[in-house]
Amino acid sequence: MTQPLYFVGIDVGGTNIKAGVVDDQGNALSSISIETLAWKGQEAGLERMCEAALLATASANLTMDQIAAIGVATPGTMDIPAGIILDPPNLKPWKNVPVRQYIERKFNKPTAFQNDANAAAFGEYWVGAGRDAHSMVLFTLGTGVGGGIVIDDNVMEGRHSHGAEVGHMKIEMTSPRECGCGRLGCLEAYASATAVVKRTEEALAADGGASSLHALQKQNQPITSRAVFDAAKNGDALAQKIVEDTAFYLAVGATNLMHIIDPDMIVFGGGMIAAGPEFLERIRHHIRQLAFPVPATKTTVCYAQLGGDAGFIGAANCARQLFRRRTAN
Amino acid sequence: MTQPLYFVGIDVGGTNIKAGVVDDQGNALSSISIETLAWKGQEAGLERMCEAALLATASANLTMDQIAAIGVATPGTMDIPAGIILDPPNLKPWKNVPVRQYIERKFNKPTAFQNDANAAAFGEYWVGAGRDAHSMVLFTLGTGVGGGIVIDDNVMEGRHSHGAEVGHMKIEMTSPRECGCGRLGCLEAYASATAVVKRTEEALAADGGASSLHALQKQNQPITSRAVFDAAKNGDALAQKIVEDTAFYLAVGATNLMHIIDPDMIVFGGGMIAAGPEFLERIRHHIRQLAFPVPATKTTVCYAQLGGDAGFIGAANCARQLFRRRTAN
Repeated sequence: MTQPLYFVGIDVGGTNIKAGVVDDQGNALSSISIETLAWKGQEAGLERMCEAALLATASANLTMDQIAAIGVATPGTMDIPAGIILDPPNLKPWKNVPVRQYIERKFNKPTAFQNDANAAAFGEYWVGAGRDAHSMVLFTLGTGVGGGIVIDDNVMEGRHSHGAEVGHMKIEMTSPRECGCGRLGCLEAYASATAVVKRTEEALAADGGASSLHALQKQNQPITSRAVFDAAKNGDALAQKIVEDTAFYLAVGATNLMHIIDPDMIVFGGGMIAAGPEFLERIRHHIRQLAFPVPATKTTVCYAQLGGDAGFIGAANCARQLFRRRTAN
Repeated sequence: MTQPLYFVGIDVGGTNIKAGVVDDQGNALSSISIETLAWKGQEAGLERMCEAALLATASANLTMDQIAAIGVATPGTMDIPAGIILDPPNLKPWKNVPVRQYIERKFNKPTAFQNDANAAAFGEYWVGAGRDAHSMVLFTLGTGVGGGIVIDDNVMEGRHSHGAEVGHMKIEMTSPRECGCGRLGCLEAYASATAVVKRTEEALAADGGASSLHALQKQNQPITSRAVFDAAKNGDALAQKIVEDTAFYLAVGATNLMHIIDPDMIVFGGGMIAAGPEFLERIRHHIRQLAFPVPATKTTVCYAQLGGDAGFIGAANCARQLFRRRTAN
């Protein structure tokens, strides 16, 4: 019998670091979360990543010498082949952090580095929604709109580590909304949770008090995308229009990816999919109007399945891919 | 000494079939063109393709037994892995034409089949503008807007043979133009030669006679995209606005591909690049405004170099790739 293979995946976020041990079949044997504490600086942050790896390993009742390889996924602008975070907006005040090198030296293991949205896509592709797909595009719907593209078991990193920035494709020219990235007309400016809230607030300012969401504002409670989706389910006409438009915008984004990548599968993940199956059905409806008949009827459009674990599972899959390539040579 | 390798590339168009012999280094040893005569039906059309292959071979002073493999590129909806044209708008009345099988049996040679725009991209990637690139996106600007994507020597065919239909990404939602495909807001409806003419005619109907292009209309001469680009060069304000908007639309399309594929290089080809280097400079200008700083500064944006030969050279490269894969096994 050969030894079973175990991989550690680490998913670094602005608030928390998640990590887990994943076996060669993609089963997560542990899942832990600690605070990132990014404000303590990047040296401390790198040590937090190592702590997370050790905790995840102990939590799986393993020791580090049983781990074959490690994968780390992080947000921010980065140089993926170099393994470096450059200037991450969500990890201030970090700059030019040699993540891969640090972890590789710390544990003396093969270490893979990846963008967090790409890693989430690679996780879903491996053992989530895309486990039977050969090519898959993931849209993650949260504060922003992120994404990842996997084709034939390869993550599309892009030449300058900017592949799959699907939230920043332009879908509007005539009266483009300003995006959080400072540019105009990006999908994210229409279809992120933040954009849903902003569009709702604009609509409430103009509707003369008819919507049930005005009650929230009167109680000084913030409008959340969750509240908008809930109001829509309860028959609020303003909220229903916001939700329907959001489904349309996402269908435009999905159609563009069908006409560019033409994958087996388009997957929507992130907090906003709590909106439920009716919302997915509206996205599918608009795709059928927008896309060419063949991709419109043959491409699977579905929700992600791994939730918040997709990132570390995908990071572990990056570790597994690196380990396999090294042992194949 | 091993025998030199020769490949036949065939590029089937609605009007003409081009073909040539290409050696293993990508040098075209011959280049011939015959009429497609699609109206004679698909059996006759398949025979015309074979005639083109024989003519190209003879024209290179070779015989068919010196040819290692054949590649055929065609327009129309298709099933690329099956080697079949399904329902081609430009090759009426053809339906479900088994192109690859026919040519393979006729000459008893390994035969590759590819979409014509993908083949043009593969030609440019091999020995044209993209010869030093690892990943490349081609936009072909003609009657429509076609495209091809090559990453690490692989053509992105897509799961349903709909990859790289870049002309049909949606870039406008508020007042979307209707595209030739019958859908709304496609890049092609803004930036093809046909769209340039249409937008010019609309502008002429509203400008009160100031533009020099009215003279063409008075002489009952058709407005062409060439005439619009020429008028712009001669200082016509209406034409300059049309050209500037076209550059902007193409920059939106290029930026979206930079944010999705993030290639080494974006290449513009097709008849419209006769507009010259000033037009390319305007596209680059708008990309610098629209795209993220890293791809905006690092991605090469240039014109295609192989002109009308790109298709058969790319088809020959498909043949070469097929031959190499078969001989490697």
